[in-house]
Amino acid sequence: MTLDSQETPAAIVDVRKMEKNIAAMQERMNALGVKFRPHVKTSKCVEVAQAQIAAGARGITVSTLKEAESFFAAGIVDILYAVSIVPSKLPRVMALRKRGCDLKIVVDNASAALAIVEFCKTAGESLEVWIEVDTDGHRSGLKPEEDALLEIGRILHAGAIKVGGVLTHAGSSYELNTPAALAALAEQERAGCVRAAQRLRAAGIPCESVSVGSTPTALAARSLEGVTEVRAGVYAFFDLVMHNVGVCAIDDIALSVLTTVIGHQEDKSWVIVDAGWMAMSRDRGTSKQSRDFGYGLPCTLDGTPLDGYLMIGANQEHGILAPADAGHAPDHGDLKARFPIGSRLRILPNHACATGAQFPEYHALQATGELAVWSRLHGW
Amino acid sequence: MTLDSQETPAAIVDVRKMEKNIAAMQERMNALGVKFRPHVKTSKCVEVAQAQIAAGARGITVSTLKEAESFFAAGIVDILYAVSIVPSKLPRVMALRKRGCDLKIVVDNASAALAIVEFCKTAGESLEVWIEVDTDGHRSGLKPEEDALLEIGRILHAGAIKVGGVLTHAGSSYELNTPAALAALAEQERAGCVRAAQRLRAAGIPCESVSVGSTPTALAARSLEGVTEVRAGVYAFFDLVMHNVGVCAIDDIALSVLTTVIGHQEDKSWVIVDAGWMAMSRDRGTSKQSRDFGYGLPCTLDGTPLDGYLMIGANQEHGILAPADAGHAPDHGDLKARFPIGSRLRILPNHACATGAQFPEYHALQATGELAVWSRLHGW
Repeated sequence: MTLDSQETPAAIVDVRKMEKNIAAMQERMNALGVKFRPHVKTSKCVEVAQAQIAAGARGITVSTLKEAESFFAAGIVDILYAVSIVPSKLPRVMALRKRGCDLKIVVDNASAALAIVEFCKTAGESLEVWIEVDTDGHRSGLKPEEDALLEIGRILHAGAIKVGGVLTHAGSSYELNTPAALAALAEQERAGCVRAAQRLRAAGIPCESVSVGSTPTALAARSLEGVTEVRAGVYAFFDLVMHNVGVCAIDDIALSVLTTVIGHQEDKSWVIVDAGWMAMSRDRGTSKQSRDFGYGLPCTLDGTPLDGYLMIGANQEHGILAPADAGHAPDHGDLKARFPIGSRLRILPNHACATGAQFPEYHALQATGELAVWSRLHGW
Repeated sequence: MTLDSQETPAAIVDVRKMEKNIAAMQERMNALGVKFRPHVKTSKCVEVAQAQIAAGARGITVSTLKEAESFFAAGIVDILYAVSIVPSKLPRVMALRKRGCDLKIVVDNASAALAIVEFCKTAGESLEVWIEVDTDGHRSGLKPEEDALLEIGRILHAGAIKVGGVLTHAGSSYELNTPAALAALAEQERAGCVRAAQRLRAAGIPCESVSVGSTPTALAARSLEGVTEVRAGVYAFFDLVMHNVGVCAIDDIALSVLTTVIGHQEDKSWVIVDAGWMAMSRDRGTSKQSRDFGYGLPCTLDGTPLDGYLMIGANQEHGILAPADAGHAPDHGDLKARFPIGSRLRILPNHACATGAQFPEYHALQATGELAVWSRLHGW
């Protein structure tokens, strides 16, 4: 299969761009002297994780236990499950550990910590737990100065549970768009997480790993003193949100949706394609950024952006492409002649994690022009 | 499995509510004297389609060829593929027809009509084609008075292709919210589609079926004179968007996402749950409606809405529930006591089609309280 023959819609991964993105991040991490643990929630794809590990990544981060199970089955052993655990998921965690998976779990509250201690006592087993730190107030975790941080550390430590480290994710970096603001947030993320580790250590609780990261802060950090590892996910593909944040060029975006023109509404300068929201996802992440890309940026089959066009609307299996500024339709002559029925385009996504999730597999575009099928996880 | 033991997140279908919704729509269609052809793109689930057919539906509508193939394999023969066909998909269509599937395809342009004629001539076979009519300007189709309508009818008819009917979908009904406006749009949808059929027939082109529909217009239509069948999809589950449109009560919504509390941020009155946008989808369909439900409406495990709470934010696997009005947090006492770690909630979705699509299967809640697994299609 090639881009000309593959059925549409399809999720195309440009392997050359992906490998360039992976290499660039790894080089940066090597230069900063930290271990890199990519978040595989973006791709949920073994081939992508293998490329990350081949480039130098050590271990992975996952967002679901299904990811942990699948990537362990593919031979990856060092796995951090970076969502606060609930007691009902502990048997599934323990089953993986017993099979040899070095799976680490995360808590940010005393209730879960107590449940872990109780569970391990009953099972006669142990677990490795990392404590989540909140360094930017955008989601979960404990503030570095909170009393509860030490309380939880003590509950685990006293319960013979290994406190393996602290982790934080400065997800509010997605809302920034200047190098200075990103660098400042990266420093805030670093300093907060290091401070939490220091407090635990000062209280006699071992805390080896200090794990930070998001794609924007990983690419903006100037110093990572005290940090042992960085996590990032979307950098492998990048997307239009990351372009607006300022951490990639349009040409770096490795994921696109291959689509076919199925109709026109000439009076409105609309081109209708067979990629609707089921293909692109409903993610409108660029809607509040400096440049709103609608549901995505249409490109020619070779990946060149169609200047002045956007995917302005989406039904389930219909996408509407149109001039971005309705009052200034590009002077491209007859719409039907430029975009004939059956012709093909590629659409760059707002958010690679969300668009990828719509597809059971990627079609990986090789240097030869051939498409390889790469399976992708779905569900929990 | 029950709601207490099922792993989370999970997509729960309340079978009693679903069957009530299905029965109510079918009764309405029976009373209006039209055939009903449900759109299975909402559920993509054989068990749901079988319930629709058991209630009296005749044939189904699909949005992808994968749906056509899967539902035909489950024994459903009369299938309308309601997205404009492109020539590259014709071999897959023909393969299904040769196996006995009464699959009908749709066109709205001369280019595709000519390609169908050419394809059938070469293959020595025929196809049944319906022509798409645009009655509200929201997407694809030909306007009832357009010259191209007859041109396409003549291309097909002269090429020995059966013109089986005309169809339209007044999807702009989702933007309305009064009974009068919905009834007016339903009449516009009916009149436009009937007019297109009359013009084809007057030109000597047979056009047996006149197919209209969307959930809001189907429920608002006062007369369907000249219409032979109605299509609707989301009515089987309903959702918060449909509630805002005014065609269902909150209590009618049959789809919800089962989730577990994994954390709190007490200073912000946040409850963190393990259903993020990967579970709910990124659909924010209520954001421009009369009542914005954020990413969904949290309910207790028995389905009672948690008055005053919304899912205000979503990361991939984290959902943030909070008082809808941050300045007026409900006086419920201690957040951690009311929503302890490990406790379970159900979240009603903005858009059932989009939320369902995030899950490989539904968990169908029976009258006994047991959950049955119903598989759901993914991909194309």
